[in-house]
Amino acid sequence: MTGEMHRHRPSLGTLLHHVHVSGPLSRAVLAERMGVNRSTILALTAELVAAGLVSEEHPAGTTRAGRPSLVVRPSPRVYVLAFDVAVDRLTAARVGLGGDILGRRSAPRSRTGVDLDTVVRKLVSLGHELVSSAPPGTTCVGIGASYCGMIRPGDGMVRYGPEMGWVDQAFGTELAKALDLGCAVAVGNEAHLGAMAEYERGAGVGVPDLIYLHGDVGVGGGILVGGKLLGGDGGYGCEVGHMLVNPVDGRPCLCGSRGCLEAETGEYALLAAAGRTPGQSGASAVRAVARDARAGDPAAASAIAEIGDWLGIGVANLINLFNPGVVIFGGMLRDVYVAAAPQVAARIARHAMPVSRERARLCVSALAEDATLMGAADLGFADLLADPLTAA
Amino acid sequence: MTGEMHRHRPSLGTLLHHVHVSGPLSRAVLAERMGVNRSTILALTAELVAAGLVSEEHPAGTTRAGRPSLVVRPSPRVYVLAFDVAVDRLTAARVGLGGDILGRRSAPRSRTGVDLDTVVRKLVSLGHELVSSAPPGTTCVGIGASYCGMIRPGDGMVRYGPEMGWVDQAFGTELAKALDLGCAVAVGNEAHLGAMAEYERGAGVGVPDLIYLHGDVGVGGGILVGGKLLGGDGGYGCEVGHMLVNPVDGRPCLCGSRGCLEAETGEYALLAAAGRTPGQSGASAVRAVARDARAGDPAAASAIAEIGDWLGIGVANLINLFNPGVVIFGGMLRDVYVAAAPQVAARIARHAMPVSRERARLCVSALAEDATLMGAADLGFADLLADPLTAA
Repeated sequence: MTGEMHRHRPSLGTLLHHVHVSGPLSRAVLAERMGVNRSTILALTAELVAAGLVSEEHPAGTTRAGRPSLVVRPSPRVYVLAFDVAVDRLTAARVGLGGDILGRRSAPRSRTGVDLDTVVRKLVSLGHELVSSAPPGTTCVGIGASYCGMIRPGDGMVRYGPEMGWVDQAFGTELAKALDLGCAVAVGNEAHLGAMAEYERGAGVGVPDLIYLHGDVGVGGGILVGGKLLGGDGGYGCEVGHMLVNPVDGRPCLCGSRGCLEAETGEYALLAAAGRTPGQSGASAVRAVARDARAGDPAAASAIAEIGDWLGIGVANLINLFNPGVVIFGGMLRDVYVAAAPQVAARIARHAMPVSRERARLCVSALAEDATLMGAADLGFADLLADPLTAA
Repeated sequence: MTGEMHRHRPSLGTLLHHVHVSGPLSRAVLAERMGVNRSTILALTAELVAAGLVSEEHPAGTTRAGRPSLVVRPSPRVYVLAFDVAVDRLTAARVGLGGDILGRRSAPRSRTGVDLDTVVRKLVSLGHELVSSAPPGTTCVGIGASYCGMIRPGDGMVRYGPEMGWVDQAFGTELAKALDLGCAVAVGNEAHLGAMAEYERGAGVGVPDLIYLHGDVGVGGGILVGGKLLGGDGGYGCEVGHMLVNPVDGRPCLCGSRGCLEAETGEYALLAAAGRTPGQSGASAVRAVARDARAGDPAAASAIAEIGDWLGIGVANLINLFNPGVVIFGGMLRDVYVAAAPQVAARIARHAMPVSRERARLCVSALAEDATLMGAADLGFADLLADPLTAA
C-alpha cells in the first residue's frame, strides 16, 4: 500500500461512516456532507472500491438531464455480529455495512440463576448459526455486544450486572474466546449503546446533547454531551437508574438501596402498583398495563399515573443537569412514556428550570426493539470505520 | 506579520496558556509539557517576546552544572479585569497574565431590590478604580464576569438570576458599554467558572471529569466532562441546585418549586435548621453554625447533620450520573462539607454505585474565595490565549 493511500485514512473512514449510517449515497451528497470536492470523493471511493468495502453504480430511474452522480453503496461482503443480553432474551444478529439486519436469532432466558458460562454458551450457539448461514465470500469484521449492566471499557468486563447478580465477570473476553472468530468482542452498556444508535440513525439524529432512557427490568441511561457518550472517570457514567428520587418511602431496589429511579419506575414497580399477579412479567405485561390504563381500568390508570410521576421527577432532574435537546424513551419505557406523558410533562413543568427545558423535546425511540442491538453492531464496526484499509 | 509566524499560532496560545496557569516555566519544562523539541520552544518564545507577552531570563540561584534552561515569564504588561457578582458582595480585580491578582476592590450589596443599572454602575466604579491604579504602559486585554445565575453564551444575557429576580437582563452588553474600555465582557455562571478555575489551577488539576459545587445563597454546579464544561443544548447545563432531592416535604425554593437541592442545603435551610435569628446571614453565619456544631452545640450539630444528609443524597446522585474523578466543594459549601463529611460519606456509600464511586475523591476548593473570580479572569484571557498575536 502506498504512502499516498495512507494519507486519506481519516477521510476514508468518514466516507464509509456516511454510507454505513445512511445507506447508498450519491457522490454529490457525500461531497456536500463531507465538505470536500467531488474529485476527492472520487479518489476516496476508488480506494474503498479496491478494498471491497463499497461499490459504485448508476442511480436507478434517473430522469433529470445531465450526467447523474454515481451512487456509492456499502458492500454486502462485510458484516458484524451483534449480541444483546437483555433481561428476558438473548439476541444475536448479523448486521451488514449500511446497517441492515441480515439475520437474527434469539432465545428466551430465565431471570434467575444465569451464570457467565451459560450465557456465553447460548450466545455462541446463536452466533455460530448466523455465521454458518452467511453467504459465501462474506466476512465478519467485528463483534459488538450490549449488556444490561456496568461495563469496563477496553475489555468488556461486567463490573456489575445487578439483575443477573454478576460482579466482575469477564464477559467480553470469554465470549470472544468461545466464539473463536478471530475478533475481539466490544461490549457496551445497553442504554449507552441505545443512545449512540438513536444519535446515529434514530430519534436523535443531529442532536448532540441527548438523553436516552432504556427500560428493561431496570432503567438505564445513555447520555451524549456534545455528541460524545458521557463516560466519566472510569467509563461508568450515566447511571440514571440509581438516581435517588424517593428518599422518604422508596421501594427497594436491586442495588440494595431504596427509592432509586429504577425502583420507582421499572417493571416491578409498575406491575405491583397495577396489582398484577406475580406471574406476569416482561414487556408484554408492561404493555398490557399501559393498554388497560388507556381503556379506563382504574388500577392500571393509577399505576401509570404513579410511575409517570416518578419518571417525570427523574426526567426533570436530568433536564436541569444536562439541558438536553432531546430525551428519548426506549425499551419498555416507550409504552410507559406514551401512557404517562401528562404526568411526565407536569413534573417537568414544575421542577425543570424554564431556561433548561425551553428547547428539550421528548419522544420515543425510533429504533424501538433494535436500538441496543444496532448500538452493539456499531461497536462491532468501530475498528473498520476508524481505519477501513487495515481492518477490512 | 509573516506567514511563517501565522503557522505557529495554535502553539503560541498553548505555550502562553502554560505560563499563564503555572507562572514562570523553564524552556525545558515547556518542551516536555508541550511534547515539542527545545528549538520549537525557542522559536515560539521569540515570537511571544516580540509581542511583549513574555520575557526570558536566567533562573535565579542555579547551582547545577551545565547551561541552565532559560525561564519564560509572563509579561506584567497585560492584564484583565475580572468581576464577581455574588449574593452579598460585588468584587472586581485586576489579574495579570500568570494568574496573580494585582489589585482588588469590593463592595457589599443588599440582597433585595438590586436592578441591572445599580449593579452595573457599582461594578463600573470598581473597575475604573482598578484601571486608573494600573501602572503606566500596562494594557487591559479582556474582561470576564462571574454571575450567580443562568447565562446565555455569546452575549452574557442573564436568562435567570433567581436570587436577584433577574429574567433576561442584558448584563454582559450593558456592563461592556458602561465600562467603555474597548473590550467585550465575557460572562459565565459562577459555578461553571469555579469548576474551570479549579481544573486549571486548583483542586482538580489533571482530573478532566470533575464536579464543582458552589454554595452561595443557592447551590450551583459546574461539571467538566472530559475536560470540557458540560454546556448542553443551549449552554444551560449543570443546574444541580434545582435537582429535586426531597419530593415529599421539601422546603420552598426561590425557583418556585420545593425540595430542590439548594432549598435543602443552601444558606437559608442551614440557618433555619440551626434556629438562627432571621437577621443572621451570609458566609460568616454559615461558618458560625459549622463552628458551633464542632463545639457541640446540639441545634447546630443537628442542622449540619440534616443539611449534610441532603447534600450527600445530591452528591450520590451526581456520582451515579457522572462517575467523576473528584467532587469539589466551594463557596459556603466548604464549611458545610467539612462539618458534614460523615453524613455525606454515609449517603454516598448507601446510594452511589460502588463502581461509580470507587475512584471519586471529595475535597474542598483550593482557590477558596477566589475560585469564581479566577474563573472570570480566565474568561477574560480566553481571546488572548486563543490567538496571542492578534489579541495582544
